[in-house]
Amino acid sequence: MESMSDFRKDAVTGRCVIMRTERMFKPGAYRVDKHQKQSQTCPFCPGKEAMTPGEIFALGRQAGAERDSGGWKIRVVPNRYAAVTPDAGPTEKSKGFYESAPAFGRHEVIVDHTAHDLEMADFDLEQLELVLRTYRERWRDASRAAGLRYAMIFKNFGQQAGASLEHTHSQLVALPFVPSRAADEIDGGARYFSEKNSCAWCDDRHSAQERGLEVFANKHFAVICPYAARFPFETHIVPVVHASDFTTLTDDAIPDLAAALKEILSRLKRLLDDPPYNFIIHSASLDMPIVSGFHWHIEIIPKLVRTAAFEWGTGFYVNPTPPEQAAEYLRGGAIQA
Amino acid sequence: MESMSDFRKDAVTGRCVIMRTERMFKPGAYRVDKHQKQSQTCPFCPGKEAMTPGEIFALGRQAGAERDSGGWKIRVVPNRYAAVTPDAGPTEKSKGFYESAPAFGRHEVIVDHTAHDLEMADFDLEQLELVLRTYRERWRDASRAAGLRYAMIFKNFGQQAGASLEHTHSQLVALPFVPSRAADEIDGGARYFSEKNSCAWCDDRHSAQERGLEVFANKHFAVICPYAARFPFETHIVPVVHASDFTTLTDDAIPDLAAALKEILSRLKRLLDDPPYNFIIHSASLDMPIVSGFHWHIEIIPKLVRTAAFEWGTGFYVNPTPPEQAAEYLRGGAIQA
Repeated sequence: MESMSDFRKDAVTGRCVIMRTERMFKPGAYRVDKHQKQSQTCPFCPGKEAMTPGEIFALGRQAGAERDSGGWKIRVVPNRYAAVTPDAGPTEKSKGFYESAPAFGRHEVIVDHTAHDLEMADFDLEQLELVLRTYRERWRDASRAAGLRYAMIFKNFGQQAGASLEHTHSQLVALPFVPSRAADEIDGGARYFSEKNSCAWCDDRHSAQERGLEVFANKHFAVICPYAARFPFETHIVPVVHASDFTTLTDDAIPDLAAALKEILSRLKRLLDDPPYNFIIHSASLDMPIVSGFHWHIEIIPKLVRTAAFEWGTGFYVNPTPPEQAAEYLRGGAIQA
Repeated sequence: MESMSDFRKDAVTGRCVIMRTERMFKPGAYRVDKHQKQSQTCPFCPGKEAMTPGEIFALGRQAGAERDSGGWKIRVVPNRYAAVTPDAGPTEKSKGFYESAPAFGRHEVIVDHTAHDLEMADFDLEQLELVLRTYRERWRDASRAAGLRYAMIFKNFGQQAGASLEHTHSQLVALPFVPSRAADEIDGGARYFSEKNSCAWCDDRHSAQERGLEVFANKHFAVICPYAARFPFETHIVPVVHASDFTTLTDDAIPDLAAALKEILSRLKRLLDDPPYNFIIHSASLDMPIVSGFHWHIEIIPKLVRTAAFEWGTGFYVNPTPPEQAAEYLRGGAIQA
């Protein structure tokens, strides 16, 4: 199978783009999106397993059951429209002034529930624990593969947040390098640590309560609105004890993470009128997973505002709701005008 | 008048956020946006001058006419909901672990036509020249002010691109520092120059034609699709002769820029079914405007796809339409499936 995309690097900023070269979107294709209706045959629904590429992983089937059969509770398949693919091979090439390389990596879809219409806020805790176990398993598998340096798991919920299929799902992307924005965060954390001899996220979490930025916490996880939140009601889930790498999530912490995730997604749903959202799990790089200056966490961003030219041009966000007010509102209080 | 917003700096990434502190959006306010209908009294329409803050600049009135009266062709006013304001004063303060400062700067609205419903693609060339003269004048004025280090002019066209008022307008934002994304571009251009002893944008423009990336050109400006385009049909307008600073735009180049801008906006409108878009004028910093390693340009981004979690998390874009194909399509050819 040939590479479906190329990495292209901007000569000035070093910014990388994944350029699809084989499945070109005609201009009309972008418009269809606006009026998208789901077809009646969803490839992620039970009984339609043959519609997806062959399965990578599944949970919930009885022992001895066949791959790509029914009876699963969670199912992981390659993304049919993968941004990056293992088939590209971990090589790199450069072409004079321009630089490009085949888009090597992994892009997996985690079908996180059999129910087509159920959103994650409404999963039961048992299912959410299976989801988190699957995340950890796929992340661990990526970390063992040759040539991969960075992984992330994310969820786009709702068309406005970029979900192209309605059936609830998450995605894993693993790349042969650390992308610039992730590197900024990892480098920034290391710099902070070298200056203060403590972890920025640990410091942040400790001061969150006195600053009115904590929404709630349980034994293993704190849910906070970050001080420099880019978006209204941006919320982070942070492990209470320092941990830089998502794959070190322990079995006994999983129920607490499931509970924290369900609680915050439910509050966002109830208090903000079921908004579209993205969440992203940020972890250290795969080749240096255990570090003092990074702290893995989940960033949840409800899509309430549109990003406009000012933000694109400057990388500089305008947030109309201070996180102190957002946290108060999410704690259950009424927001002040 | 008190500061309306604060700058807040993320301790890890150095990323800056403008946090509104006085005009707080309640959760409900975000929803209104979805069903937005323009009121019948548009503050940008002729005759409604009293509805805006007092005017800063205007073109087109007869000599001796009063400020904030009718008869203008272009009118510049402070943004009523400014992200930054001159009243904040160019000071800086820091608060322990967190950093914040009053959001000093300029945020101006350029009402670029009297006609409420006319989009810029349909302006006549004479009006477009007035618009460009106004851009240059306001940019020059910002460059003369104390404490400002970076300026940008941009246009959000269409609600999906972040326009909150329907009446055609552009905006100028000037800041007391160079924001990170702009600094990346300026620094990257300087690095490129120091390595190759030539300007990256000049090199890019020279090779655009042989690489099939040029859409069209006139004497003073080339319109190209950049090699590492982040978005489908992303298009840049680049001065043919090296120039780092927008304010050096000469009178004799203005008609060519007006013509190039009208032509590309018209093609995007016609060929992509009148998409929402953003354009942004990128220029060198105000305190070092004339440099060999930067080249001012206009980036035009039609809003055809939604940015999802993958892009947010990595700063890494997935572009389904290679710029070679986009340029071919915009040259008038049919796009290949």
